[in-house]
Amino acid sequence: MLPLSDSPIVRDGKVLILAYDHGLEHGPVDFEPVPETMDPERVFEVATHDAVTAVAVQKGIAEAYYPSYEDDVNLLLKTNGTSNLWMGEHDSAVNCSPEYAADLGADAVGFTLYGGSNHEVEMAEEFREVQEAAREEDMAVVMWSYPRGQGLKNDTKPDVISYATRLGLELGADITKVKYPGSPEAMEHACAMAGKSKVVMSGGSKASDREFLETVESAISAGASGLAVGRNVFQRENPTALLDALEEVIFEGASADEALASTETAAADD
Amino acid sequence: MLPLSDSPIVRDGKVLILAYDHGLEHGPVDFEPVPETMDPERVFEVATHDAVTAVAVQKGIAEAYYPSYEDDVNLLLKTNGTSNLWMGEHDSAVNCSPEYAADLGADAVGFTLYGGSNHEVEMAEEFREVQEAAREEDMAVVMWSYPRGQGLKNDTKPDVISYATRLGLELGADITKVKYPGSPEAMEHACAMAGKSKVVMSGGSKASDREFLETVESAISAGASGLAVGRNVFQRENPTALLDALEEVIFEGASADEALASTETAAADD
Amino acid sequence: MLPLSDSPIVRDGKVLILAYDHGLEHGPVDFEPVPETMDPERVFEVATHDAVTAVAVQKGIAEAYYPSYEDDVNLLLKTNGTSNLWMGEHDSAVNCSPEYAADLGADAVGFTLYGGSNHEVEMAEEFREVQEAAREEDMAVVMWSYPRGQGLKNDTKPDVISYATRLGLELGADITKVKYPGSPEAMEHACAMAGKSKVVMSGGSKASDREFLETVESAISAGASGLAVGRNVFQRENPTALLDALEEVIFEGASADEALASTETAAADD
Amino acid sequence: MLPLSDSPIVRDGKVLILAYDHGLEHGPVDFEPVPETMDPERVFEVATHDAVTAVAVQKGIAEAYYPSYEDDVNLLLKTNGTSNLWMGEHDSAVNCSPEYAADLGADAVGFTLYGGSNHEVEMAEEFREVQEAAREEDMAVVMWSYPRGQGLKNDTKPDVISYATRLGLELGADITKVKYPGSPEAMEHACAMAGKSKVVMSGGSKASDREFLETVESAISAGASGLAVGRNVFQRENPTALLDALEEVIFEGASADEALASTETAAADD
Amino acid sequence: MLPLSDSPIVRDGKVLILAYDHGLEHGPVDFEPVPETMDPERVFEVATHDAVTAVAVQKGIAEAYYPSYEDDVNLLLKTNGTSNLWMGEHDSAVNCSPEYAADLGADAVGFTLYGGSNHEVEMAEEFREVQEAAREEDMAVVMWSYPRGQGLKNDTKPDVISYATRLGLELGADITKVKYPGSPEAMEHACAMAGKSKVVMSGGSKASDREFLETVESAISAGASGLAVGRNVFQRENPTALLDALEEVIFEGASADEALASTETAAADD
Repeated sequence: MLPLSDSPIVRDGKVLILAYDHGLEHGPVDFEPVPETMDPERVFEVATHDAVTAVAVQKGIAEAYYPSYEDDVNLLLKTNGTSNLWMGEHDSAVNCSPEYAADLGADAVGFTLYGGSNHEVEMAEEFREVQEAAREEDMAVVMWSYPRGQGLKNDTKPDVISYATRLGLELGADITKVKYPGSPEAMEHACAMAGKSKVVMSGGSKASDREFLETVESAISAGASGLAVGRNVFQRENPTALLDALEEVIFEGASADEALASTETAAADD
Repeated sequence: MLPLSDSPIVRDGKVLILAYDHGLEHGPVDFEPVPETMDPERVFEVATHDAVTAVAVQKGIAEAYYPSYEDDVNLLLKTNGTSNLWMGEHDSAVNCSPEYAADLGADAVGFTLYGGSNHEVEMAEEFREVQEAAREEDMAVVMWSYPRGQGLKNDTKPDVISYATRLGLELGADITKVKYPGSPEAMEHACAMAGKSKVVMSGGSKASDREFLETVESAISAGASGLAVGRNVFQRENPTALLDALEEVIFEGASADEALASTETAAADD
Repeated sequence: MLPLSDSPIVRDGKVLILAYDHGLEHGPVDFEPVPETMDPERVFEVATHDAVTAVAVQKGIAEAYYPSYEDDVNLLLKTNGTSNLWMGEHDSAVNCSPEYAADLGADAVGFTLYGGSNHEVEMAEEFREVQEAAREEDMAVVMWSYPRGQGLKNDTKPDVISYATRLGLELGADITKVKYPGSPEAMEHACAMAGKSKVVMSGGSKASDREFLETVESAISAGASGLAVGRNVFQRENPTALLDALEEVIFEGASADEALASTETAAADD
Repeated sequence: MLPLSDSPIVRDGKVLILAYDHGLEHGPVDFEPVPETMDPERVFEVATHDAVTAVAVQKGIAEAYYPSYEDDVNLLLKTNGTSNLWMGEHDSAVNCSPEYAADLGADAVGFTLYGGSNHEVEMAEEFREVQEAAREEDMAVVMWSYPRGQGLKNDTKPDVISYATRLGLELGADITKVKYPGSPEAMEHACAMAGKSKVVMSGGSKASDREFLETVESAISAGASGLAVGRNVFQRENPTALLDALEEVIFEGASADEALASTETAAADD
Repeated sequence: MLPLSDSPIVRDGKVLILAYDHGLEHGPVDFEPVPETMDPERVFEVATHDAVTAVAVQKGIAEAYYPSYEDDVNLLLKTNGTSNLWMGEHDSAVNCSPEYAADLGADAVGFTLYGGSNHEVEMAEEFREVQEAAREEDMAVVMWSYPRGQGLKNDTKPDVISYATRLGLELGADITKVKYPGSPEAMEHACAMAGKSKVVMSGGSKASDREFLETVESAISAGASGLAVGRNVFQRENPTALLDALEEVIFEGASADEALASTETAAADD
């Protein structure tokens, strides 16, 4: 584990990752609700918001857009990922070597592990290589820990999420990204299971401001170190307002109510 | 992404690739309509036309013929490809290492990715290696992005082509070659999906001059950066006339009508 | 084989390994009986007991917790392991390279071999790489030799356990960890089969103090060099008392009776 | 492509390869008609005939016998091959690295590619490695291009043989060895398809002198650069006489009739 | 091929290998008839007999026992092997790298090839790596050539054994170990098929002194260079007497009768 307090992707022990790999993982369909979100430029602009501690993208996006933002945005390079054109057993191609990620200026690398997939063993070995090379380059390691496969009917069950965070700790992730397990108690258990490593919850599909902020508040109270969010920010008309609110909840310990009130006041002041 | 304005395979932001890998991919049958096209010499001669920014061939063709043309033609070495003697799930052998491509004088490397194939993960990882090595050698990277496989009934559907160009962007291609998705609107969407990376349309099987030029005009208007063409040039009696016309449409913004008129005038002048 | 008398994980020819890889191999369910055992800190504290010659953990646990204990605890880094989210043929991912284990300060590496599994050949070849690299780094090599697979109905049968210890000897382990084969005679045979290499018995699931100590006494009398124990220590209210007793049985040749009496006296003295 | 005029395995643009890999590919059964042919010594003796530009053998034969013949015989090391004890899908093991071939003094390397086999992709990638390494060592590259597999009912059909020679050209062979496609027209087409690279016909099973020489004459007239022959030379009582005749047909442009007459005269003179 | 006359594992052109890999290949069951044979020490003691030109063991046995015998015994390190806990298609794990074998002081490496197995191609490629690395280290190469698999109903048929010795020659073994093909004529054919490389017969399961020596005599007369023997020596009460007799038959050209007479005389003299 890195001394994460030194990592630029962590601020005051907290993390807010703007995840933007939908173009690879889900394809154009994910941009349909708000077509301008297909433009990576817009996402990097959003990522300059103070609340965002890193933007997570694939190699090609980083190559084309990051050079203009390297002073203002921290880069979390997602090193694997696969299109959903493919229908086979859960797996993910390693699309970027960690050495190349470092060359691109990455502060951290991201890696999806599908525990429970028939490709789990192979993916864990690929994770090993990425993780150890990231250590060489002083990049933090973030695991997208998403158990999937035949034996797993429900991939947000509390014991599955707790196993997912434990995989992050045991295999050497600094931060493990998991789905919200449904209750604060389950989230607390999942965070305890991760020991000294950090847990961030995954933003999931779009919800209302209040609903979303309350889930984040509950996760933070339960011990999560923050959030990795994509559509719940990009697909809003005003991502800045939501990021203002998230900043209060994640970094300042505000409740969802307080954060909503304060951002509404700010909006009224404009 | 390379600063493509510096790459010899791009002129004024536009690209015209003469693709000549049919001998490997389709075999002798593709040369039957015009038998002399089996001779690579003829293709390199055609490629000396000013309109052509690169010729795309397999390693063996480059080894045997490129030394005589290296001053006049830019080389796009196609690094993978497979015969159609083989009937299995879509896959492609890596026939040339990027280092060897650079030794042969290549300005760019080409790579076919069959998104949706059961070999997608493996091919994406091979692409990673080729792409990163190409960066080391300052060669541009062109992806032949051809989704195929069980789940894909129609491989020119607009959303499939838009996914194909997005794969190029996300995985780190500088230029992505796709089939024409059937309408200018669909082509525009596919180009937007590619962000800062470039899109070229694939020439496809032989069409009439007018029909072909109109499709190219429509693609350029929709944001495409050019064309990768094989049979539609080789199989003509007078490839030069068509290349003259393509030059006007692609590099000078002429309409198909204008280009046809101007080349007919030129022919009358002879 | 290393001159094991020089290895810090062996004391007076004997070994007591505290094994703590349940979080990866079995998941959160193994911590349910005593929830605080999910905290690796607690295990490292227990491992400072004089009786413990090494603690066996996965890479991530070592990264996060070992730096505070490297003066007081010897590290046996378990280099492979897999979650039980996965239901396939017995296999295990290599999660830590031996070089990285050495960087983390490991005194020894551990490796699970499932003899009889359809992955036996592949695992044996992975073992080769770990074993030879461990020799380079002067780390001892401990094999978790657990025959499994279609052909094996009973994996604690005497001839299976004797084959398991022989695999350790033939393939180059210094110490082989096996399940108790059910009788002192069988254990004696298994130890003889290991030749000059050492055999430690696996602690298994939780038993009563007396029952457990008697099995250990019997194994030691039969020629075993010690014990690798997890739940039978962690899940007790007072691990220290049991470790005191184990120290007497393993390192001082006491009987289970003597060790129990002496630790009860010590408890009464407090 | 190498400047083949500099290669010792080519004389005046022509090639006569003595192929002796039957011991591996077919086993002892191939030596039954003439048992003394099992002795490699005899083959190397035959290969000292002026007509022979190279002998093609596996690594072990080269190691044991070539040192005594390196001044008199050019070595074409066959780098892959497999026994027919095995009944699976067409494949071939790489038995010699190109670097080792160079150490043994090889002037060229040989490689079998089964286009159309389910192993085509893998074999083509192995060919890539051998081909590129051969370039480093200035060794010529000879492909045994033998399309096989489910989709191929007839492996000497003209279009199959033309595809086979094209594979040689596209993938980077200097010389491609194919079966005779049945007619001079088909052979001519196959040679044209190979462009600047050379084509040699495979000798096949034993035929009469006249029949065999006529086929060779026809192949040479059709543009073939020569012959790779095994049983048709070894299994004769007087290989020298046939080699004399082949020399006239291949290197001196004689007809089969002329060559037969001239060798009969020579025999009468003895 | 090495100049084998320089190799310590050959004396006067003859070879007697004491093979002791039963512990891995067959497991404890092979030691049941004579339990003390499970102790490798005993085998190394026997191997100090003058008649023995090398002892063949797996890596772990060499690591633990060879240091005390390196002045008196030549080491043939068996680099692959697999337990019979596993029931799958014939295959064998590479358990020792040739470089590590050299570090252990090996004079030669051994490798099992199952020609005809579905793993033949993969095993032949592993053999290539071991063979070429052995050349670098000046170690002789011994192939255990054991055709097996679906297509092979009888693995001691003369033509199978002749194919087996030919595989040794073609692939680059110095010495090939095969089963006795049932008759002196068949053995003679198998030895001729091996050309300049040497053939040793495999000792097989335990037979009477006379029966065994007569088979050896017959093999030597047929051209074999010696014997690789395990159980037929270890499982005797007096291995020395049999080795005395074998020495006469193998190195001094005695008949089985002469050797038996002479060792009986020696016994009477004691």
